[in-house]
Amino acid sequence: MAFKIGLLGLGTVGAGTAQILLDRASRHPLLQEIEIHSIGVRSLSKSRPVQLADELLTTDLEAIVNDPAVDIVVEVLGGLEPARSLILKAIANGKHVVTANKAVIARYGDEIYTAANSAGVYVMLEAAVGGGIPIIQPLKQYLGVNRIHAVTGIVNGTTNYILTRMQTEKGEFGDILADAQKLGYAEADPTADVDGLDAGDKIAILASLAFGGRIKLQEVYCEGIRKVSAADIAYADKLGFVIKLLAIAKLQQPATDNSPEALEVRVNPTFVPKTHPLASINGVYNAILVEGEPLGQVMFFGPGAGAGATASAVVADIMNIAAVLKSNNNATTLHPLLSCSHQHYCAIAPIEDVVTRFYARFLTKDRPGVIGKLGTCFGNHNVSLESIVQIGFQDSLAEIVVVTHDVREGNFRKALDEIRSLDAIDSIPSILRVL
Amino acid sequence: MAFKIGLLGLGTVGAGTAQILLDRASRHPLLQEIEIHSIGVRSLSKSRPVQLADELLTTDLEAIVNDPAVDIVVEVLGGLEPARSLILKAIANGKHVVTANKAVIARYGDEIYTAANSAGVYVMLEAAVGGGIPIIQPLKQYLGVNRIHAVTGIVNGTTNYILTRMQTEKGEFGDILADAQKLGYAEADPTADVDGLDAGDKIAILASLAFGGRIKLQEVYCEGIRKVSAADIAYADKLGFVIKLLAIAKLQQPATDNSPEALEVRVNPTFVPKTHPLASINGVYNAILVEGEPLGQVMFFGPGAGAGATASAVVADIMNIAAVLKSNNNATTLHPLLSCSHQHYCAIAPIEDVVTRFYARFLTKDRPGVIGKLGTCFGNHNVSLESIVQIGFQDSLAEIVVVTHDVREGNFRKALDEIRSLDAIDSIPSILRVL
Repeated sequence: MAFKIGLLGLGTVGAGTAQILLDRASRHPLLQEIEIHSIGVRSLSKSRPVQLADELLTTDLEAIVNDPAVDIVVEVLGGLEPARSLILKAIANGKHVVTANKAVIARYGDEIYTAANSAGVYVMLEAAVGGGIPIIQPLKQYLGVNRIHAVTGIVNGTTNYILTRMQTEKGEFGDILADAQKLGYAEADPTADVDGLDAGDKIAILASLAFGGRIKLQEVYCEGIRKVSAADIAYADKLGFVIKLLAIAKLQQPATDNSPEALEVRVNPTFVPKTHPLASINGVYNAILVEGEPLGQVMFFGPGAGAGATASAVVADIMNIAAVLKSNNNATTLHPLLSCSHQHYCAIAPIEDVVTRFYARFLTKDRPGVIGKLGTCFGNHNVSLESIVQIGFQDSLAEIVVVTHDVREGNFRKALDEIRSLDAIDSIPSILRVL
Repeated sequence: MAFKIGLLGLGTVGAGTAQILLDRASRHPLLQEIEIHSIGVRSLSKSRPVQLADELLTTDLEAIVNDPAVDIVVEVLGGLEPARSLILKAIANGKHVVTANKAVIARYGDEIYTAANSAGVYVMLEAAVGGGIPIIQPLKQYLGVNRIHAVTGIVNGTTNYILTRMQTEKGEFGDILADAQKLGYAEADPTADVDGLDAGDKIAILASLAFGGRIKLQEVYCEGIRKVSAADIAYADKLGFVIKLLAIAKLQQPATDNSPEALEVRVNPTFVPKTHPLASINGVYNAILVEGEPLGQVMFFGPGAGAGATASAVVADIMNIAAVLKSNNNATTLHPLLSCSHQHYCAIAPIEDVVTRFYARFLTKDRPGVIGKLGTCFGNHNVSLESIVQIGFQDSLAEIVVVTHDVREGNFRKALDEIRSLDAIDSIPSILRVL
């Protein structure tokens, strides 16, 4: 019995996937039973990095998801449409689906998994988060015996590359972004990466798996790295931190015993203590830290993107579906750890209710008593400070850095509003959360 | 339908396992269908960290593996016997087995898996390596689509704790071992840990999974950390390295196109470049780095021991068996990624054939020409040097440090034999491999 693959897309990841499936020696023996049946492409004439028989290729993607011979549809087109529609059609036709498409799953996961469950098929997405790092299946199959407290990840390689270079070269965001674009590490339109939206899609998916409920993507707070400056990175360094774009999903400590449980799900540049396992993840690498009871902390590290790494995850998903079908061909019940049965939506805390530490940098007129006034404003709003230090001058302005204890974000923002109205305040160039 | 667990052993890991299974709220819903049926203990009167109904406990371990009501036997006794016999009896009685016992699996894995395959049952061992880190199942289910080149791990927490403290405190092995024993980080008889035998069991298991064949444990080369000195750690630091006890399973580069493929499987203290992902794994933590094509490098990091972490892995295995049985109750075929079908034994290269870099420290009489003589001896045996430096004096002896390029270990040893016969040589206090 051979499992027949319909591959939608032959870009970087598609070509990498085909390459593994066409060169199966010395890989898992189960791959011998998996074969590429057809590949949907935009243009038949384009040259490819992988040798393929002409008759495998077609521009008719609909035909692939409707082809009764195809067992598993592998969607590596990227983008929302036609990816979403093709996935739904494949499911309606009783085909299993493997996708690397975090954008589609984060937005249409509920629709897709509802359809998959009623059709009795699997939708696998290991490649959607963390590239080649096995993180989706460990969360689904292993870590769930724990009470998960938090999932914290560096899940966007482009921004981690930019922040790493800003740190090493003491450069500014704009210059390094431009260079990263030249070198192919950032896209011509870098919005999805640098504004944290890609990381937002990914943490929505991880949060859903870790906390066992659906996540409304519009409730995920996303803040990117455009405002991070060389000055902040230098101060972070002095204080014993590095700045990383973290994607965080965390169960809140209830304020009282009767408070409802809520999740924080957010993406923001963060001061990370240098001793923290995520602090040393540099360049385009990704890492995901999972914390739970009784396990403690485990971290998964590896290449977050790239043809080979992502294809490794895609083919692993194909192999897992093949394995279940092989041992379980007549079953009417889906394997409970490979399928997704979430029904309810997780309650996501508004960003104002998040409790975290903050770092903020102020430029103020150099007058006596400014530090006292800042302290008073923070006190007025219940914001407890760890330190408030004048660190120097910039032009004729005094530069003051504040680090808070854990505070409610809403209170911190109100304090900032009051501070902005002070005569002595010129500006607040940086506000960053501290892990 | 509930799955009934017979738990053999109620020590640290057993109690941790029971604790999870008795307190299932906010964990994976599948755990609701798993219940403890009986627990085998040595003494009924001992006080336990976990509250258990008296009628669950028995001192008759045989009765548990023979009890028709038990679906899954969980062996957390440790040690070779009666663990091995009880596992084999459970299998013969058609029960699935979850074990945390690296020693039994590394020694009797062939016997146990042959029996399991013929009885049509699963033997799961996530907890046997890396404590709470999911590494066994990612290797079995995900990473195998790659051509694995190497698995390199810090898999023994005790030795990593000792080496980390030797590095931080500039202390000697004996003193820190004694203190670690006082603090409970090392056992009264530390042999299995400090001589690398525990790590040897674990790398044998990882090698078997990564390279798809059985491993003869007696072919695994094990060298411990007793000879590592504060002086070596200091020189390593100067040269840009830290010293770690690494467990390594690596496909050798064939010397010629016709050379047979062979595996290196070994445990030895190693110079690890400070920039390497394993260099920053400190204290009792474990980490396993897997390298393959096309994936590149992925690393798994977490607590390598402890009641909670290990129990997390044990319960995850139980849940995986339950999931397969639930979706697949009448199947006659084992799930190919959860079972183990290795038949052949991997060819393990003798340690003399390993190709690696070396660091060696010599004490020599302070005579002109000693460095030249050392160089000549190495040259005589085809050992190419990266550096040879006199770094100082110790008493009236000159201290010379040599770092080689990649060399065949057999050649290096022959060169050392010749060097030992030189008049000018007092001793060779340290010989360490370099990653």
